[in-house]
Amino acid sequence: MIIVLKPEATKIQADEILAKIESLGLKPLYMPGSERVVLGALGDERVLERLHLENHPIVESVRRILAPYKLVSREMHAHDTVVDLRGVPIGGPRFVVIAGPCAVESRDQMERTAKAVRAAGAAALRGGAFKPRTSPYAFQGLGKEGLEILRETADALGMPCVTEVVDVDDVELVDRYADAFQCGARNMQSFRLLKSLGQSRKPVILKRGMAAKVEDLLLAAEYILAEGNPGVILCERGIKTFETATRNTLDLSAIPIIKQKSHLPVLVDPSHGTGIRELVPAMAKAAAACGADGLLVEVHCAPEEALSDGRQSLSPEQFATLMKAMEPFAAAAGRSLGPGGPSTR
Amino acid sequence: MIIVLKPEATKIQADEILAKIESLGLKPLYMPGSERVVLGALGDERVLERLHLENHPIVESVRRILAPYKLVSREMHAHDTVVDLRGVPIGGPRFVVIAGPCAVESRDQMERTAKAVRAAGAAALRGGAFKPRTSPYAFQGLGKEGLEILRETADALGMPCVTEVVDVDDVELVDRYADAFQCGARNMQSFRLLKSLGQSRKPVILKRGMAAKVEDLLLAAEYILAEGNPGVILCERGIKTFETATRNTLDLSAIPIIKQKSHLPVLVDPSHGTGIRELVPAMAKAAAACGADGLLVEVHCAPEEALSDGRQSLSPEQFATLMKAMEPFAAAAGRSLGPGGPSTR
Amino acid sequence: MIIVLKPEATKIQADEILAKIESLGLKPLYMPGSERVVLGALGDERVLERLHLENHPIVESVRRILAPYKLVSREMHAHDTVVDLRGVPIGGPRFVVIAGPCAVESRDQMERTAKAVRAAGAAALRGGAFKPRTSPYAFQGLGKEGLEILRETADALGMPCVTEVVDVDDVELVDRYADAFQCGARNMQSFRLLKSLGQSRKPVILKRGMAAKVEDLLLAAEYILAEGNPGVILCERGIKTFETATRNTLDLSAIPIIKQKSHLPVLVDPSHGTGIRELVPAMAKAAAACGADGLLVEVHCAPEEALSDGRQSLSPEQFATLMKAMEPFAAAAGRSLGPGGPSTR
Amino acid sequence: MIIVLKPEATKIQADEILAKIESLGLKPLYMPGSERVVLGALGDERVLERLHLENHPIVESVRRILAPYKLVSREMHAHDTVVDLRGVPIGGPRFVVIAGPCAVESRDQMERTAKAVRAAGAAALRGGAFKPRTSPYAFQGLGKEGLEILRETADALGMPCVTEVVDVDDVELVDRYADAFQCGARNMQSFRLLKSLGQSRKPVILKRGMAAKVEDLLLAAEYILAEGNPGVILCERGIKTFETATRNTLDLSAIPIIKQKSHLPVLVDPSHGTGIRELVPAMAKAAAACGADGLLVEVHCAPEEALSDGRQSLSPEQFATLMKAMEPFAAAAGRSLGPGGPSTR
Repeated sequence: MIIVLKPEATKIQADEILAKIESLGLKPLYMPGSERVVLGALGDERVLERLHLENHPIVESVRRILAPYKLVSREMHAHDTVVDLRGVPIGGPRFVVIAGPCAVESRDQMERTAKAVRAAGAAALRGGAFKPRTSPYAFQGLGKEGLEILRETADALGMPCVTEVVDVDDVELVDRYADAFQCGARNMQSFRLLKSLGQSRKPVILKRGMAAKVEDLLLAAEYILAEGNPGVILCERGIKTFETATRNTLDLSAIPIIKQKSHLPVLVDPSHGTGIRELVPAMAKAAAACGADGLLVEVHCAPEEALSDGRQSLSPEQFATLMKAMEPFAAAAGRSLGPGGPSTR
Repeated sequence: MIIVLKPEATKIQADEILAKIESLGLKPLYMPGSERVVLGALGDERVLERLHLENHPIVESVRRILAPYKLVSREMHAHDTVVDLRGVPIGGPRFVVIAGPCAVESRDQMERTAKAVRAAGAAALRGGAFKPRTSPYAFQGLGKEGLEILRETADALGMPCVTEVVDVDDVELVDRYADAFQCGARNMQSFRLLKSLGQSRKPVILKRGMAAKVEDLLLAAEYILAEGNPGVILCERGIKTFETATRNTLDLSAIPIIKQKSHLPVLVDPSHGTGIRELVPAMAKAAAACGADGLLVEVHCAPEEALSDGRQSLSPEQFATLMKAMEPFAAAAGRSLGPGGPSTR
Repeated sequence: MIIVLKPEATKIQADEILAKIESLGLKPLYMPGSERVVLGALGDERVLERLHLENHPIVESVRRILAPYKLVSREMHAHDTVVDLRGVPIGGPRFVVIAGPCAVESRDQMERTAKAVRAAGAAALRGGAFKPRTSPYAFQGLGKEGLEILRETADALGMPCVTEVVDVDDVELVDRYADAFQCGARNMQSFRLLKSLGQSRKPVILKRGMAAKVEDLLLAAEYILAEGNPGVILCERGIKTFETATRNTLDLSAIPIIKQKSHLPVLVDPSHGTGIRELVPAMAKAAAACGADGLLVEVHCAPEEALSDGRQSLSPEQFATLMKAMEPFAAAAGRSLGPGGPSTR
Repeated sequence: MIIVLKPEATKIQADEILAKIESLGLKPLYMPGSERVVLGALGDERVLERLHLENHPIVESVRRILAPYKLVSREMHAHDTVVDLRGVPIGGPRFVVIAGPCAVESRDQMERTAKAVRAAGAAALRGGAFKPRTSPYAFQGLGKEGLEILRETADALGMPCVTEVVDVDDVELVDRYADAFQCGARNMQSFRLLKSLGQSRKPVILKRGMAAKVEDLLLAAEYILAEGNPGVILCERGIKTFETATRNTLDLSAIPIIKQKSHLPVLVDPSHGTGIRELVPAMAKAAAACGADGLLVEVHCAPEEALSDGRQSLSPEQFATLMKAMEPFAAAAGRSLGPGGPSTR
């Protein structure tokens, strides 16, 4: 940690801070310059946070040297983590596509959609039972009934399924039905929920918050790993910017950054990332090209009747076309869309 | 609602949509132009959302005419709402300052801080027992013990107190100790929590999310009012932008916008809004000048030892100086810092 | 155009506005609703802008139906425009890579870099002679001498070359040396410069401004086309957001949006778009995957000695590796990196 | 400057960099830690930029300790600079309001508007002759004729006047007519223009760019001061964010930051800052409260007929009301709206 002192700081004040640093077992450094005195503290910076040096009246700024996360860091764990989604490995050679409707609306809707996405090559099924909606007047999901429909549909087709959990109280319930939890963008910093998911043994798909930096996402993942659950799958789904042509701005550069800083697998959600059906294929291909481990895509058997986010949902035909179009891009990235290697499809 | 059709839309397709609009009891309008056909639907737009016209393949865009919120709207309720915080009216002639530490750390810290803020003119006490922290390695709050300390300190001084609630499961517990709930920026769209707070009868200070538009904030408030709790106090605390000189960008123009669109009172949090102690006084004065109903300010008896957010906390002396400096600005805005009218201080 | 009136608007006021609309030869529409009166005006919305209805005291909001640009619009010109960069067609089957240093620093630097990028398959050479720099103390470019070096280097290798023009006064000078003008992000709304470039007959690479929406970029291009120069090549190079892990946030979803709305070709600059050398390859591949027509890449013969933006420059070896790695992605997108068809390389 | 090396850096590589630092006359520091080696370089960091250490392959990151600007810095010049706008001191006890239409449209419009703003207490007149407009189809200003009208109107009333200059070629022309140059947000990083304005002896009102950090604004001002013109007046006018309720997000916290970091005076433009007439008064008061030295306000004699930005223009009556309402806020800030002291009005 680098501590820049204000111009008026005295040597005695600097010595006080250096003594505190030393008392925590860290190596203190004194660097007097012509305009400012700079102090250093080398060692585990998590220990240093206890000193709260940024509060000190003679401290101008404090800058960390090391990343604030540990367990998710590639420095601690050099090799890519592969998370098992009930038999589907995420983070390995397969480019995994998880598809389904934004919300579970009915048994018929789920069956038709699920059959279509399975036939087109999706590896797992998605569908929301608890929907966080900006307006209290919008459809809020079927709740437990939705979970039952999702599970039965997935079982009938032999697919793993994932669904969003929005509250600590639902973790146990969702755990009974789903093969993986999805933690949505609005809950990326619901730390109580993160801790609860950390105590589960099922994978967690953790979506980046709309105002979260990549570092914030990695710290949110650290909450889950710190509780003992290593099965975190990150997901880029767009951030809030001034651009209004898209619902969010899909930050694909987050993918290579995450791959550089962390060993965790990462998906891209081009549906929420753009909010516009017509843009999904281009961004899905780009996701494969820049190193993502898979996609989370919204597909609805009848998008024009969808109760939520129909504008961004693909029809079964559009999804089948996309999956076919994805093949050469996945192959170019050394991946395969199917369970075998790159050459099997 | 205005529905713009794609250039290729046929008259038959337009008629289908018009029939759907009429079937919901709304007035349909057909407006053929030289380059596009535009449809209109006049009436309660909440009903129209059921049609999900934005999903329709021949629809280019859908634009609402009316605001999506109702209960929080000034059109529905022309006069300013005054929320009673255990005897302290928020939204009336008094400019209400709620002050205290970011986190309750100890009985001694709370006592010293509370006495100081009360002496300087604060109307209510704040202090966090459950702290949402970006890093799992940071201080997470004292929990129930913190609530007890907060309550006892407030009672000893005869002040109302407010504290953050971060999870549905804590609502009952917090309700036993606090006079108002604080719903933090990270939970502004934790809709389950909003509904739970809507079932309480205590006021809720609802802070704007870091990526939330003013409209999103008003919709979040609508969740609480729709459940029956009219006591919502909004709070502007900064949004995420590219500027890094401040922790967040305090969007003071949100104050007159909220006053124009809603009847609810609104506070400003210049501490989180800037993240920098030295900027708090200027932004506190600006908040009073642009029409805010009060402040939420962080004060710590020894900021350099604070376990969280010390960098933005005022010392008791700085707070006392601020309160004195605020007087002419509150008076210029037709407000008073004390319980009487503008002339009493 | 849709004009929403304020609740208090009278029928007489509405009629006044309708009369104005009709007087301009547009079709007026009157749509009285239960809560608001809405007016419509169908026809060329550019004419309507003369009425400045958004200023009118009884008007709540004005919403355009049609895009504000015409000449750059795909509706006006359905087929992709291919711009000829001195023999290199941009916007056709070739995925065009324009490479070179951020700034021309010396004859030796340009020669070494140019030979390397040509050998690796770059179609054209780039290099800045006039450098817009945030700090007045940073290297500002070699000026005319830089242009001479660029031209001679390009001629020696038989490559077209492009360079940035930062001021109207330099247009003639740059025109003498370069095969295409580059208009940088900071000048995207230097309208005088845009008009001047519109009077040239050489192609213009127009980079998106850091705070510009896609619509703003298309309107900037409209300035150039409106002056008679059809040879505009758009370029996405990242926008300003709250994320600090990258220098800018590369908005790749802009590519399919631009392709949907406009007939103009579009490049991606992954060097400025990320600011980090290690991220360039991933984003270059993603650019090809999502439909870009080519790249603008910074390459320096000795990045560690570069006078500007070395942190984002590839070494010749890294560039050669990238070009090889790009091939399957370009092929998957139906493009070729070389002058022939997809199969020639 | 602090230089963090990558984990794989060797002692020999570190020594090489230390030798370079020393060769520039700076003090090198070697700080080996358990996970990273950190180097320091103490002295004038502008010199260090020549080393381009951020480009070096073993360097992970480089962090400046000192601000990158010098001449605009309060550390170099502790006392507030007061800029003389032809007899009106900006930055002193008078809170200076500069008012007028967005664009000069006609002699009649200027006369009516100017008389009204003068009567209400405006200290100077504004009006644009060269208008940067997003669309090529929008009104672009009257050019030289507009300058003549502005000058004559100002002279007739004995007021100083300011107008925007958008291009280097116009500097001489504008200099003949205006008492101060206005450099608009879109040109804040038109460095050639900044240098040209730096060679003038008239004051420059420099508006913050829509994507510019406060630091970028101060660096832009440094360009002007570095050329010899000390008369820079900064202006906050809103930045681009995700919020769409306002045209821009007025970042008032920039005011106390600028006052902390720089000695230059700073104005606020609440008209462009919000884009909405109804919000102007609240933000004008807030500007005075947080320490701004004055305002730049759009007033039009008939806002509903304005050729540009009428939506944000005040009518003469609204402006007169605002000026009256500003008085107690200016007084609370220790300022006066008139030429005398706080007590004269």
